[in-house]
Amino acid sequence: MPRLCGRRYGVSKVLFVPYALFDYDGYTRKARNAFQNMGLELESIHEKEDPVEAVKEAQGIFIGGGNTFRLLKTLYDNNVIEPITERVLQSGLPYMGSSAGTNVATVSICTTNDMPIVFPPSFKALGLVPFNINPHYIDPEPGSIHMGETREERIKQYHEERTTPVLGLKEGSMLEVEGDKAVLRGKTGAKLFIRGQEPQVLEIGTDISHLLKSE
Amino acid sequence: MPRLCGRRYGVSKVLFVPYALFDYDGYTRKARNAFQNMGLELESIHEKEDPVEAVKEAQGIFIGGGNTFRLLKTLYDNNVIEPITERVLQSGLPYMGSSAGTNVATVSICTTNDMPIVFPPSFKALGLVPFNINPHYIDPEPGSIHMGETREERIKQYHEERTTPVLGLKEGSMLEVEGDKAVLRGKTGAKLFIRGQEPQVLEIGTDISHLLKSE
Repeated sequence: MPRLCGRRYGVSKVLFVPYALFDYDGYTRKARNAFQNMGLELESIHEKEDPVEAVKEAQGIFIGGGNTFRLLKTLYDNNVIEPITERVLQSGLPYMGSSAGTNVATVSICTTNDMPIVFPPSFKALGLVPFNINPHYIDPEPGSIHMGETREERIKQYHEERTTPVLGLKEGSMLEVEGDKAVLRGKTGAKLFIRGQEPQVLEIGTDISHLLKSE
Repeated sequence: MPRLCGRRYGVSKVLFVPYALFDYDGYTRKARNAFQNMGLELESIHEKEDPVEAVKEAQGIFIGGGNTFRLLKTLYDNNVIEPITERVLQSGLPYMGSSAGTNVATVSICTTNDMPIVFPPSFKALGLVPFNINPHYIDPEPGSIHMGETREERIKQYHEERTTPVLGLKEGSMLEVEGDKAVLRGKTGAKLFIRGQEPQVLEIGTDISHLLKSE
């Protein structure tokens, strides 16, 4: 995917955001190795003097996974929420996120699976798409006696409070968004939750571009 | 447990807090039936004109489960955080919580498993005990290929940020606190996470009163 992204968008260097994990240096080393193997240079935002400038100069941005609350709080602390949103939505900066980095790309982090280990100033996120994503979406094991809520029940609870659609992205899937087109890629598929409707199972290859038009 | 609680503390009527679920009336009906079967009257805080007065007059309080963020936000919205803390810690009001109702009894909701479906003004909770609890604690299934963090990894991430001890209470366990004594009850046990130490497996009957002395 990153190589594809590099080729398709003329990107040779990616700005990495390691804020979701505690050990920025270790995380950056791992990410740098992986990107170098794909022929892409990687710079981490935490090694740059001015994070806002780093975003302004980036050719492409990759936000990695970890804890979504820590990630969002650190994006706010470093004043890069608006600069990232502006560059992606207005100048088409290629954006890639995994796990927590996917959560923050959406309307809010209200459908993350993570523990609220730190208190961000808001749950409002980058809003690069007008819906929410639940990453690592998983259906309950048949016959489970665990009494905690299932993922589907949690998302239903969210819809008791809000109308934003939620895309449950299963392990091994990704959503590719380009302009006004959004298509499910990967191996496993997704489940789409619209308030007041039965959840829809979505196969790989499904075009969900209509969701980009929701408020 | 509620009957025991009623007998031991001279409680004949319990104040119920249904804020963690969306349907207060339905939740109250269920809880009322269960408590009546145990010989205890149940009044719900949402049926009372003044929630703060209701807390002041209560003989005992039971906060039920659901979504921890919704519960904590509604406790703040109704200005009952301080009154509950004061009555429990200063006048020994019997308090019982399950799931989300257990989370809000601790230092903070930072170790809840729930989705952040609404934004409370703070993650700080009632602070009835000087540590955090992770309810429905579960060890990973051996051989699982799910890539989301395990519960233990999530709690370790919390300890990258904070020093508060975390008690992982397994399904089917409870913590009984009376005065300066805290004992694990139930059927399954718990796992105790202290920052910088290996997690300790705790059997049913373990006395963890020393944790009541931590900050």
